[in-house]
Formats: sequence, C-alpha cells, structure tokens
Amino acid sequence: MNRYAIQHIVDSAYCFPIAKDKISLRLRTAKDDIKEAYVIYENKYVYGEVQQKEPMTKSYTSELFDYYTITLTLEDTRLAYIFYVNDGNENYFFSEDGITKTYNYKLGYYNFFQYPYINEVDIMDSVDWMKNAVFYQIFVDRFKMGNTSKDKSYINCNWGDIPTPKTFAGGDLLGITEKLDYIKDLGCNAIYLTPIFSSISNHKYDINDYETVDEQFGTNEDLENLVENIHKRGMRLVLDAVFNHCSDQMSQFKDVLENGRKSPYFDWFIIDGDKPNQDILNYETFAYCEYMPKLNTSNPQVQKYLIDVACMYITKYHIDGWRLDVSDEVSHDFWRTFRKAIKKANPNAVIIGENWHDAYSNLRGDQYDSIMNYAFTKASLDYFATDSLDAKGVAYKLNDLLMRNTDTVNNMMLNLLDSHDTHRFFSEIGEDKEKFKAALCMLFLYPGAPCIFYGTEIMTTGGYDPDCRRCMDWEKAEGDYGADIKNLIKWLSALRQKYDFSQGVVKIYSVDDIFIIENKSDICEIKLYINNTPKTVTVENIKLEPFSHIVMENGGQYHD
Amino acid sequence: MNRYAIQHIVDSAYCFPIAKDKISLRLRTAKDDIKEAYVIYENKYVYGEVQQKEPMTKSYTSELFDYYTITLTLEDTRLAYIFYVNDGNENYFFSEDGITKTYNYKLGYYNFFQYPYINEVDIMDSVDWMKNAVFYQIFVDRFKMGNTSKDKSYINCNWGDIPTPKTFAGGDLLGITEKLDYIKDLGCNAIYLTPIFSSISNHKYDINDYETVDEQFGTNEDLENLVENIHKRGMRLVLDAVFNHCSDQMSQFKDVLENGRKSPYFDWFIIDGDKPNQDILNYETFAYCEYMPKLNTSNPQVQKYLIDVACMYITKYHIDGWRLDVSDEVSHDFWRTFRKAIKKANPNAVIIGENWHDAYSNLRGDQYDSIMNYAFTKASLDYFATDSLDAKGVAYKLNDLLMRNTDTVNNMMLNLLDSHDTHRFFSEIGEDKEKFKAALCMLFLYPGAPCIFYGTEIMTTGGYDPDCRRCMDWEKAEGDYGADIKNLIKWLSALRQKYDFSQGVVKIYSVDDIFIIENKSDICEIKLYINNTPKTVTVENIKLEPFSHIVMENGGQYHD
Repeated sequence: MNRYAIQHIVDSAYCFPIAKDKISLRLRTAKDDIKEAYVIYENKYVYGEVQQKEPMTKSYTSELFDYYTITLTLEDTRLAYIFYVNDGNENYFFSEDGITKTYNYKLGYYNFFQYPYINEVDIMDSVDWMKNAVFYQIFVDRFKMGNTSKDKSYINCNWGDIPTPKTFAGGDLLGITEKLDYIKDLGCNAIYLTPIFSSISNHKYDINDYETVDEQFGTNEDLENLVENIHKRGMRLVLDAVFNHCSDQMSQFKDVLENGRKSPYFDWFIIDGDKPNQDILNYETFAYCEYMPKLNTSNPQVQKYLIDVACMYITKYHIDGWRLDVSDEVSHDFWRTFRKAIKKANPNAVIIGENWHDAYSNLRGDQYDSIMNYAFTKASLDYFATDSLDAKGVAYKLNDLLMRNTDTVNNMMLNLLDSHDTHRFFSEIGEDKEKFKAALCMLFLYPGAPCIFYGTEIMTTGGYDPDCRRCMDWEKAEGDYGADIKNLIKWLSALRQKYDFSQGVVKIYSVDDIFIIENKSDICEIKLYINNTPKTVTVENIKLEPFSHIVMENGGQYHD
Repeated sequence: MNRYAIQHIVDSAYCFPIAKDKISLRLRTAKDDIKEAYVIYENKYVYGEVQQKEPMTKSYTSELFDYYTITLTLEDTRLAYIFYVNDGNENYFFSEDGITKTYNYKLGYYNFFQYPYINEVDIMDSVDWMKNAVFYQIFVDRFKMGNTSKDKSYINCNWGDIPTPKTFAGGDLLGITEKLDYIKDLGCNAIYLTPIFSSISNHKYDINDYETVDEQFGTNEDLENLVENIHKRGMRLVLDAVFNHCSDQMSQFKDVLENGRKSPYFDWFIIDGDKPNQDILNYETFAYCEYMPKLNTSNPQVQKYLIDVACMYITKYHIDGWRLDVSDEVSHDFWRTFRKAIKKANPNAVIIGENWHDAYSNLRGDQYDSIMNYAFTKASLDYFATDSLDAKGVAYKLNDLLMRNTDTVNNMMLNLLDSHDTHRFFSEIGEDKEKFKAALCMLFLYPGAPCIFYGTEIMTTGGYDPDCRRCMDWEKAEGDYGADIKNLIKWLSALRQKYDFSQGVVKIYSVDDIFIIENKSDICEIKLYINNTPKTVTVENIKLEPFSHIVMENGGQYHD
C-alpha cells in the first residue's frame, strides 16, 4: 500500500462530532490503493480489552486520493479508534504511530486515535435555514432605485451606463423592497447585500458610520421595512460587515488625524508614529488604500464597538446574519468573541467569512459557519471557461474542496459563480448559454447554499470591478428575456427548497468525460450529467449531446 | 516526485507566526525525494506582479517524510506564498491547487497559500521561564513527611512499604518545603505536584473542596509558605487542576445526591434521570469511577467556579501554572475561557494539558501551552525498553513528534520518561543503568522541558500504579547511592539553565545505528550520541562502546 498517502487528523475535518452521540470519520488513502477500510473503535477505557469493527465507505475521490468515511453512533462518546486496511494482499493497522502489521491494543492508550469525549458545546451547530437557502446577492447602488423623490444630486450617470469606479446610479433599499416579489419569484429565499452603511463610495466598503444606513440607500427605517418585508415572504437577509477597516471619514479616524496620540481613538488604528499621515501611509490600511484605515480589532474598545453594532442589527433590526468582509485579515481572537455574541443574540444568525482560500482554521466551530466559496468559483471557471480542468479534473477538485471542511460546514458554504469582486461568469465562458445552464446546475447541486449575483438570471455580462457591477436591466429582467435561464433558476431553487440536500449522500465523479453529481437520500435522488465536450456521449443510459447537460429528479428529466 | 507525500497546511503547525513580523513555514515531502525546495512569497496585494524566492532547509526526517523549513521576516505581514521544488529532474510548483508544472501568479489570489495578516493577538506567546525549566514531579503522599506533629491516624503503612491503592504514607507540603534545597541541588528549578486539595484518597484526583489544601498535606498557609520558599530559590510551582471531575464527597454533588433535580447544583453534573444513583451509575464520571462524577464544564456556573479557583491560586498564592488532569475530556470552549482568565491573571503562568495523544487542536494558541509528552515516553520505551525502535526508528519518531506542533509549543512541552500514571522507566528498561543515563540525556536534550518523577535520581523501581508511587528513600537520596545518576542530572540541568535550547537548531538523526541529537546555536553546540547496541561503533570520529552514550558540550565530552 502507499504509506505516503494515508492520512487521518484527529479533531479536524477528518473527525468531527455531529451530535451528542454521533461522530463522522474520514480516512484518506492513495487513489485505488485500498480494497477495504475499517474503523476499529470502542470506548477508550475498555479499548485494551474489546473493540468493535465497522467497514468504511469510499465516498470521495480526488486526483490523488480516495476518502473513506463512516459515521459512528456511540453509546459512550469517549472514543478510541484505529483503522484497518487491506490492499488486496496484506492487512495493515493505522494508528498515531502510522502503518503497522500488528497492533497492541493493550498499549493502545499511547497511540490510538481518539476523540476523548463529545462535549456538546464543541459540536458545531448548523444554521437550519441555510440547508434550503438560495441566495441572491445585490450590489445596492446598481439594483433598483425605489425612492425617486430623494435628493438625486449624487447620481452621476444614466441607469444602464457602463459603470466607472466613481459611478453612482441611484439604487437603494426601497428599490430592493419593491423587487422582493421578483426575487422570490425567481426562487431565491435569502438576500445578501453589499454594505449599506454610511459611506462616500458607491460600494460602501469604506464605512464612516456603522450605525446609520447611507442616505443614498435610504434610512434605518427603510432597513426595518426591508427586513419586515423579507421575513413576511419567508426570506432571509444577510448584511455585509466591514470590520477589518473603516473609512478615513469615520469620526474616530478624523479625530486621530487631527489629534494624533492625544485622541482617545489613537489605539483604534495601527499607526507607526504619533499621527497618521495620509501622504506617507504610516498606518495600516486595507490593501494600500489610504482612505481605508485598518481597525485595531485587538483593542477591546474596538471589539466592543463593532460587536455591539453587529448584535444591534441582529436584535433590533432582525437581520439573519453577516457576511464578513476581508475576514481573513482579522484575528481569530476577534471572530471567536464575535461568534459568541452573535450566536447569543440569535443562534440562527449565519456567519459567512470572505476567505478566498482554505479557511479551515476559521471554520472549526468557534468562528464562522461558512465562507464565500471562491475555490468553487475557480473550479467552475477552470471547467467551463478555461478548459484547464476536464470532467474528471473538476470532479476530483470538487471532492478535494469538500474534504477541506466538515460536512456541517460544507452544507453551509456560500457557493458562487461570480460576485462583485470577480468578472461576470457569463462573460468568462464566452456568453455560452448552454455552459451557463450547466454551471448553474452544478452550483445548485453542490453541497452548500448557492448564491447568484443579481442579473445572473438575465445573463448580465461584465469584466472585473467596476464592470461586473452594471445596473440591473429591468426591462430584460421583467420581460421574456432569458426565460429559459430564469426558469432553470426557479426550478433549481424549488428543488433546493423541496428537498434538504444536507440529508443526502453526495457523489461527484466522471464517466467518459461526463461530469456527474448525485444527491441521494430517503427523500430524493437528484442527478446531474454535464457534457462539456464537442462529442455526443452516452453514460448510464443517458445520451448527452455536445455541450449539454441533463438533470434527473427521482428518475424524471428536467426540460427547459 | 512523490505527489502523495507533499503537504502543507495553512495556519497550522506548518505555518505559524512567531513574532509580529516573523513567520515559520514547513513543507513535507517524501523522504529523499526532493533536491531543493523554495518558498516563493510576497505581500498578497502585489503577488501577481512580484515575488521573492528563498531556499528552505531540510530540517527533520521521519520514516517516510522530509520536512523543509524556513522562517521569513516580513516587511508586510499579509503573506501570499507557494512552494517550488526540484526533484533532480523537474521543477514543480505547489499551491492550494496541488502540484503543477506552471503557475499563474496573476490568478494567485485564487490558490496561493496565505497567512493573510499577522494579528499579534493570534501569536502564541512563550512562557519564558519554560525555556530553561527542569521539572521535578512529586506524588505528595510519598515524598516526605514534614509535619511530624500532625494527626497521623490516617497513615496506614510504614514509610517505605510497597504501596497499595489505599496506602497513606504521610507525605505533605512541609516535607516538600524541607526538601527544596535537595531538589534545587539536583538542578531542578520547577516542581509539579499531583493534587493537593481536600480529598479522601491518597492521590487526591477526587477533590471535594478545591479551595482548601488537604489537611493530610497541610494548610493553605503551608502552600503559601511553600510557594514563597520555592520563589526565594528562583524556582517555580505548577499544581494539578482536576477540573474534568470531582469527588462524590464534594458538597455540591452530595446536595444533588440528596435532592436530585431540586438541588441548585443539579446542572453541575451530567445526570440521566432525576437523581444520581451510584449503583446504576446514571451519571457521567471519570472512567467508571462512581466516586468521581464528571463536572458539567459547559455550565457557566461551573466554568466560573473552576476558573475563579484556578485564578485565585495564581493571584493569591502566586503559583506558576497548572497541569490539567484529563484535560482532553473537557471542552475546547472551557479551555479557551480558562486560558483567557489565567493569562490575564499572569501571562507567565504555564498551562500544561494531560493529553496522551496528538493534542494539536488544544495547542493552537487559544487553549494550553503544552502537554505532558507521553508520545515521547512511548518512543523512549520503544527504543530503550522493548527494542521495537532502533536508533533510526527513534530518531524518525522524535522528528515526527516535533512536526505535530509549532516550535513555540515544542519548546514548552513537558517531556517525561515516566510519571505517577506509568511504570517506572528504570524498571521498564530492566534496571539497566547505562540505558537509564542515555535515556536521561535524550530527555534533557529533546526540545521542551524535561520532567523527572521523584526518585528518578535514585533509580526508584516500580510497576504500574500504585507501584510507581513508592515512598521516597531519603537514605539513598541523601547518601552516595546513585551518585553518577545524580551528577548526570545535575550536569544536564545545569546545561539547560546555562543555554536557552529554544534558540538552537535541533537535529535528530542516526548514523550506523547510533542515535544523535544536536542543539546548535550562537551560544552552544551540544551533541548526544547513543549506542543502544552490543557493538562498538565509531561515528563522526566518536567511538561508542556497546550500550553507551557520549554528550559533547561545545566539543568537550561529559564524563560521569
């Protein structure tokens, strides 16, 4: 057997409790290397004397590895375990001491794997509504102007002009409220808004007053009204928490700009010297933006201020969670405190980090619930846009990504094809409608919550920021334009709301260059086939035309 | 190259900040597979445009793997990086997307490895005194009776009788205070005591009153006096925190025994039913001991009670840290709160878990500083006692163990050959004095703080509990008995106090069945050679007789 490949990590995504008496285990081996894998386990206090043995299932395969899994139901949760594998010729034990031909259970207390006791407080809870959530992301300035009687002097373009970095188009909260039925009709039941608080920019990622909705977007009452209308429709609202940095227009920073060390807010920022100097940038910022000073989130005052703000919107405005901007540059310590406060305010509030990379260290149950899954975005681009992954490659990659985190986290991931921070996916794939549909199907069937960027339903095009942030074309949106795409999104959303995909066993694989993803449980069997090649291929008795896809719901095929 | 073997895990023991501008990286490859490894890194905001490249050093080798390391000093701590390796034929890039022949830096934001920002609060601090600490572990009842005028009616044996589980021999805090000069003379500068609080057992791991020193051992004033005398000698004291469970004699449990659900303490325990029943054991316990009910450490009241107790001994009695009994069965959540409180009370108080297994999930900087390193114990037994590891095998294993945790943690590990919970090491190795000396040298030169169990210096023998807990033989201890062992311990302790080993580069390897460990820095070069074979072997111009060892201090040899 390939001893280099075998891996198990205790108390990690390889071993995680999912209930007071249930624990899931994963074992990684080299691909196609092992014929059978078992877990040999028991309460650790009797492990020297007796053991139970259960076969594991080969559940996921990546380019290099197979992953065997099992969920154990335990009478006593003080779990000791080792693995037992057969490579077709020989049997091996795998413990903390590695691969051995024999294993001495009597001395197991030195080297078995263990999950010493399932403390309920350490079990990561699911945010239940995330299981059926379909998100619609809105860049507020570009979605819809609702309040036409407001002071429009800040608007510097016609609705529909190609945006520049400095464009203000006039979208606002009232516009969103007006379009809730539109969003609901599309099948989405959760909305994620880019920042809405007081800020001089169009994107508002540089906030100068966290407690006030930006007047371009409306008032705090408009927010209350929006939430009420969202909840009335059984939908949810997630706002954007920009806590890594603020605006240089925030009163606290302005005070420091003026008074330097004498300011009571000097330690709210990270300044090299006695006073921030915007010319020489002697203070920490987001990227190199002198107008976005980094907040010193290690300062207890700053922690309290930001966390109070975050809780206030949960308890007073009843929002359903936070997306955390540049969350990876903020300390673990801050997010731990943040999570405790948020979950105390509302255990069902979701916490979604903006980490583009492997974020397992933030997703252990003590910090966020989820991240924006840009690794999924990249895999989708590699398959549909650049052809750098074929069906096999993307199946392997999507399995790999699932193995980064626990099932609990995977089922709360915010999966996306694009966002305000990327090119429009439709442009990236050369505006190919068939590929677009296939990609949407993959998005909706992958574990986690799909999130579509406003305008996806009308095949909005666009390059990188600011071009991806074009004004919503309501004529197209409310007309027949792209009816097949809209119908597909509706159908996929309905599917996600009809069935709890988190209950299902997911298989992602390929046959003859056809990508296949399956979600199977007592309640449903959903299967997606994608042919991203110019050949006609038949697999599993399904005939796939060139560049086509087929979704099967309990044996019946979706037709758009 | 062997793609199955290569591994890097972000924000883990493979990547950890050690200062505001310094970060250490590790890269695992298959053994002897790679000729050169580099890290290609830069501030993530410019990584698409420019990168720096630095060669890594092959620092550790295990049975299967080589580990390359580097510590980077960063101007900007928002670190993006990938690895670049050469296997003698080809060059490869290694990123979050695995091994590739090419790498597109422009799209690096999707798949570079990253440490997004070094937040000081996330850097694990060293407890400075641990760098030179040499621990002496005392099982209090068996060490020395100091207060000869106390009520001795509980004593049920003669000093020196082989102990049974129920033996009370009379040792106490005053006895320890009397023998501080003895301990100091042996070279030890830190003492770890098994529990000293009110309890009906001899070991006192079943505590009924956490706030009171057991009257057999003395009074709280005796503790104050002990600490004062320890500190006067520049020494440190670590006590044993038994927070997983208590005694059924604790007033809170007695109240629940009597009043069931009506007791205000019902939720201090984990009871299946309305009342604990000691016959059917319907409540959770340590192991299966009905007299040791498990404390519900998820209950905020219990948390507060225990953490207040722990802090009280730090602030009022000035102890220098806690060893945490059965810490692996207590929640991460509890230890996070515990650490915050303890470090606030005294940042230099050390927190040492009792985890016999890989405890990385407790050693990420938010919970303990260290654990009792029983994996080191096992490796020592495998090499010296059972011959199941040869020199090469034990070198590989000891390198493996270092790779479980960060350097910061490794330098605070409590390394031990034996304890109150194992057989006496001297008995396990067939009372072989030469092996014993070699093992002691290995113990003292391995990264971390050595801890010797009382009586080690006089080659105390004994089997498993209670036999390992024999009465200290003061005639031997204070006479010439085992003078060579005592001198070796003194010399090794002096070495650890003369040089800060944590500054050194450690190499652990073998040549021709000789085990070698080296610690090299600007301040010293220490090298240990062990020949655990019946042949005479010469390596690196050092001639080693059968079953012998040699320690070199800056080129000069230690003679005992």
